[in-house]
This record gives sequence, C-alpha cells and structure tokens, in this order.
Amino acid sequence: MDKIYYITLLLDFYGELLTCKQKSVMSRYYFDDCSLNEIAEEHSITRQAVQDMIKRTEKLLKQYEDKLLLVDKYLKRREYVEGLLTELDSLIEKGNSELVNIKDLVKNIPD
Amino acid sequence: MDKIYYITLLLDFYGELLTCKQKSVMSRYYFDDCSLNEIAEEHSITRQAVQDMIKRTEKLLKQYEDKLLLVDKYLKRREYVEGLLTELDSLIEKGNSELVNIKDLVKNIPD
Repeated sequence: MDKIYYITLLLDFYGELLTCKQKSVMSRYYFDDCSLNEIAEEHSITRQAVQDMIKRTEKLLKQYEDKLLLVDKYLKRREYVEGLLTELDSLIEKGNSELVNIKDLVKNIPD
Repeated sequence: MDKIYYITLLLDFYGELLTCKQKSVMSRYYFDDCSLNEIAEEHSITRQAVQDMIKRTEKLLKQYEDKLLLVDKYLKRREYVEGLLTELDSLIEKGNSELVNIKDLVKNIPD
C-alpha cells in the first residue's frame, strides 16, 4: 500500500490520541503538503526537530495499529463489503430488482 | 446500557492499550467474577489498591472511548446491520429466495 495513504489512514483512526502539536505537524506535512522548513518556521523549531517529530509520531501511530488493528480491520471489512456489492450487482443484473434498495443499504453501512 | 456489559465492550476494544497488570486486574474482576480481596491476594496488594486501580482503569478506558468512539461506532453499525437483516428477512419471506445467501454474507460482515 502507498505509504502516504497508509499514514493518512493511521491518522484518521488514531489522530485523536496524538498531542495537539503532533496532530498539527502531521496534518501540515501529510494533508497540506507543507515542507519541513515551512512547518519548522510555523512552530519556531528546527527542520531537524520537525523531521524527528514526524518519525516519532509515525512510530507511535504504528504502535497503536499493532495493538488495535483498526486500519487492518477497516480494510478487511471494506474489501468484504465490496465483494458483497459485486454479488448484489450480479443478481440485480439478472433482474432481481428488489435488491437495488438492499444494495443502497449495504453501501451505507456505517464504518 | 448495563454497566458491566459496557465495561466489557470497552475492554474488548481498548484492552490492548492497558498495562499487563491493569489487564489482569480488570479481567479477574469483570470476566472471572473474582472479589476485590481475591485479586488483592493474587497481586500482593491491598484491597483498596485494587479498587483504586479498577476505578482508574475504567476512567482511562472511558477517555479512550471519548477520543476514538470505537464502542459507539460498533453499536451503531450493529444496529444498522440488524435493521438490514430484518429487511432481508421480510423479502425472503415474500419469496425472494436468492436473498438467503445474501443474508448469510451480511451476517458475516467482519467487525
């Protein structure tokens, strides 16, 4: 899996467990595409300190994932539901129109 | 919701974030139905220390839930899927037998 996508998922699931500063640095770096220098300036710290914080925070996020497996479970569930939607599509194509509504309900299963 | 059931869910979702000792005390108290005195003896600490640890750990679990909402999301998803299964049952009863297989797939959506 693409590293940036994976970190984004980790941030989605575990971001609330980070400190305000960790959240801000990670979000500027991964979501807003800011450079290390820009983030360093914003927080009045060195470029090296930003780089260290990003590395440490990534490690922390991965430790949470090792313990709780939220990203892993989410991806497995999503793959399973996609298989189910494909199955529903093939039955709808064969003329089982009652399944159109069911498909919508499956699509909207909350995460 | 019943308090014991709620704590059990919190332990299911966040147990891996506790220390070994916290996990052990909570599991003896909530799953194995041990008394405070029995747990105190097992861990060579006072009854009061056990009680304090249970209270602190419950608070910690609730803090995780306030941040990550895993139990809340799980219960909402389960309720939604139960509604979907009821919908499927009513279509199956009306004679849409292709849905029996779909119902099984929906039942087995991973958590």
